[in-house]
Amino acid sequence: MQRILASQALLPHGWTRDVTVEIADDGRISTVTSGDAAAANGGGVLLPAPANLHSHAFQRAMAGLTEARGPDPRDTFWTWRELMFRFLDRLTPEDVQAIAALVQAEMLEAGYACNVEFHYLHHRPGGLPYASVAEMSERIAAAAAETGIGLTLLPALYEVGGCDGRALGPGQIRFGNSADTFARIVAEAERALSHLPPDAGLGVAPHSLRAVSPAGLASAIAIAGDRPIHMHLAEQQAEVDEVLANRGARPVEWLIGQAELGPQWCLVHCTRMTGQETAALGATGAIAGLCPITEASLGDGIFDAVGWRDAAGRFGVGSDSNIRISLTEELRSLEYSQRLRDRTRAVLAEPGRSTGRVLFDSATQGGAIAAGRDSGQIAPGRWADLVMLDGSTADLVGLRGDTILDTWIFAENRPLVRDVWAAGRHMVRDGRHVARDGINARYAATIRRLRDAI
Amino acid sequence: MQRILASQALLPHGWTRDVTVEIADDGRISTVTSGDAAAANGGGVLLPAPANLHSHAFQRAMAGLTEARGPDPRDTFWTWRELMFRFLDRLTPEDVQAIAALVQAEMLEAGYACNVEFHYLHHRPGGLPYASVAEMSERIAAAAAETGIGLTLLPALYEVGGCDGRALGPGQIRFGNSADTFARIVAEAERALSHLPPDAGLGVAPHSLRAVSPAGLASAIAIAGDRPIHMHLAEQQAEVDEVLANRGARPVEWLIGQAELGPQWCLVHCTRMTGQETAALGATGAIAGLCPITEASLGDGIFDAVGWRDAAGRFGVGSDSNIRISLTEELRSLEYSQRLRDRTRAVLAEPGRSTGRVLFDSATQGGAIAAGRDSGQIAPGRWADLVMLDGSTADLVGLRGDTILDTWIFAENRPLVRDVWAAGRHMVRDGRHVARDGINARYAATIRRLRDAI
Repeated sequence: MQRILASQALLPHGWTRDVTVEIADDGRISTVTSGDAAAANGGGVLLPAPANLHSHAFQRAMAGLTEARGPDPRDTFWTWRELMFRFLDRLTPEDVQAIAALVQAEMLEAGYACNVEFHYLHHRPGGLPYASVAEMSERIAAAAAETGIGLTLLPALYEVGGCDGRALGPGQIRFGNSADTFARIVAEAERALSHLPPDAGLGVAPHSLRAVSPAGLASAIAIAGDRPIHMHLAEQQAEVDEVLANRGARPVEWLIGQAELGPQWCLVHCTRMTGQETAALGATGAIAGLCPITEASLGDGIFDAVGWRDAAGRFGVGSDSNIRISLTEELRSLEYSQRLRDRTRAVLAEPGRSTGRVLFDSATQGGAIAAGRDSGQIAPGRWADLVMLDGSTADLVGLRGDTILDTWIFAENRPLVRDVWAAGRHMVRDGRHVARDGINARYAATIRRLRDAI
Repeated sequence: MQRILASQALLPHGWTRDVTVEIADDGRISTVTSGDAAAANGGGVLLPAPANLHSHAFQRAMAGLTEARGPDPRDTFWTWRELMFRFLDRLTPEDVQAIAALVQAEMLEAGYACNVEFHYLHHRPGGLPYASVAEMSERIAAAAAETGIGLTLLPALYEVGGCDGRALGPGQIRFGNSADTFARIVAEAERALSHLPPDAGLGVAPHSLRAVSPAGLASAIAIAGDRPIHMHLAEQQAEVDEVLANRGARPVEWLIGQAELGPQWCLVHCTRMTGQETAALGATGAIAGLCPITEASLGDGIFDAVGWRDAAGRFGVGSDSNIRISLTEELRSLEYSQRLRDRTRAVLAEPGRSTGRVLFDSATQGGAIAAGRDSGQIAPGRWADLVMLDGSTADLVGLRGDTILDTWIFAENRPLVRDVWAAGRHMVRDGRHVARDGINARYAATIRRLRDAI
């Protein structure tokens, strides 16, 4: 049993002072009490730690390498994707594990307790399977065993090179599976997860309407059962055009007609929706998986968070390409993109809930649903996914309630995260992951070799 | 004399390995040599440190406090300004010094070597002058004496409450001066700067076309002589409308007709220009003072950096409201705003210079011109404004040339700044300002009292 004392905590009914949280040995919160003056000595601010609902860990190794101009006069998402394909052709299972461990440690330090890993890099260079068909999934699970992050692993189905059903290109050959081999990978991945603590979870990810046939989508849905289903949707205009040309409807429009969408679904990006699609998708209860840093980096465009709110849509955030892993920057980038578009302030604030509070509540609650994870609130029975901010800093001194979140999200200059627990595993102390040195050393060796090679 | 060894450095002619920089006791670079293998042991990456070309230090104390919804159904810049006016009605000279010291320390830690302080808070609550008419300017200089930052102080002329010449509102009364009292403040401020090291400089800031009459603008230009002149320009639509209604021309259009613009001028924001204004202003050689974080926070809108580049316009960046003090986030926010608008990548990259390199070169060169500071390059005779990145981190290991800047600016998760020198003063070591503890303690005492009071 662990006991955490906080001078303020964000509980389901709101901000509460002098809070004591007890964590049982199974990683779940056992009791939450308030009013114990001893708790004030803890000094910190305790928050539920969100899940990072969308990540491709290996892309972290490309961060910073794709900001020069390509040969095209106008560099685009698609030239970025070409470089990504060349890059990952080098990656070994050991590399993937080293990179995933770094990314997970950085996620924990940023305040995330769970990594929802949308995983499509399955096979050897050239496309032949590894001796264990789920080798790469096993490596991601091994990284999670080391970092202690909560893992929701989403093996991804990637069948075809485009909406017309064309064959995979050379850069995609390591991703490719039939629905049958995909089912085997899912089963093997589930076995790998059984070696992790019981908060680890599984879902499935039909990659996108570009990469999955209608029949493949139906298979993935069947394989999922009641587990989370994640899919990239409506990210780039070329994708919208391709789906429209091949299926006679825009991506969101088409998907709503094909599948029974609901909270089991997380649709990632959704930066290219009509107002009608926004309203219709929001009403299904599906989670919008927003990745504001990556969506800016790749020029995807600005998500319509105002229309989504008006449709009672729910969302969470993810670090996607992992070019930068910052929970606060994801949240402020989302709000700031709305302000830049609408030329106003405090766009997502509501009466009684500040901008930062609305953003943070969405990230915790939407993130937990998307992760299929029994978390998102500091309440008995939930996994103890917790983040403690350092309340003794000048940044936070004397603040109460929502202004704490506003300060953390919009005004943090130095990291304010002091401790992070994932299902009770106390992995970040004094702002640093407890196994950072070894993780850094393995990552540095990996990245030096990769950088020399490309 | 100090000697700095770097394994890579960004020199005027480009990236160079194994560089030794010597700094004379007067704070200027004396020699720059390369090829000394001993330099490689330094391990770091040495860059010219930019000036932060626009700051209102006291606003840092409001960071995070204005993200809830105001009573207006749509919260705007103008309600934010109301809160700012109430807040600063509390500030004492001691407060201003404590806040400025914190802000300057944070600027140095972020990699800036110079604070161009656009200073308009001159008088007592109620508007009477302090015993020393430049009391507040003296406090900012005192903060710079403690933090060691290079200071370019811009006393601001603020005469009227709007373009129609109306009287100052109650929130503006501490800013107000006639051209005559303003001239006295400038003279006294210059005397205060004479107690600082010789790299400190003075300029003048006619606040904006809202706050300065045509005659006041002419006076400020006369007072400036050949010193830098900074002015807020074309930030908000309401301001454009007001200038158009009262002066028969849009702000940029009007100013170009009134003053001989050139590199002596820094026009801050310029988020509301027509294509014609962009081309005309860019051609004058004036610096655009961009504050991307604040411009997002306040909903000012997206600067047209593409049109500005096509007009051969120069720019630097500033932290303005200081809601967050991050050189890298200013730069990536500028680029990302262009990507979100244009839905493409690497917008500001040029053949042979990556996105990060273009951004950083602009910040150093444009910033130095705007600061009226003999810096911006690692070259003999220049002030030794230098920033050293930690080349031993996994983030930078094995990288060369522009990808270092791309990684720092776009992919930094943990601060990579290790050392900063301002005119040779070695103020940041191991990522931390050498006097941080005392600065933090005084700021914490100030901010706690202010937060309790409002």
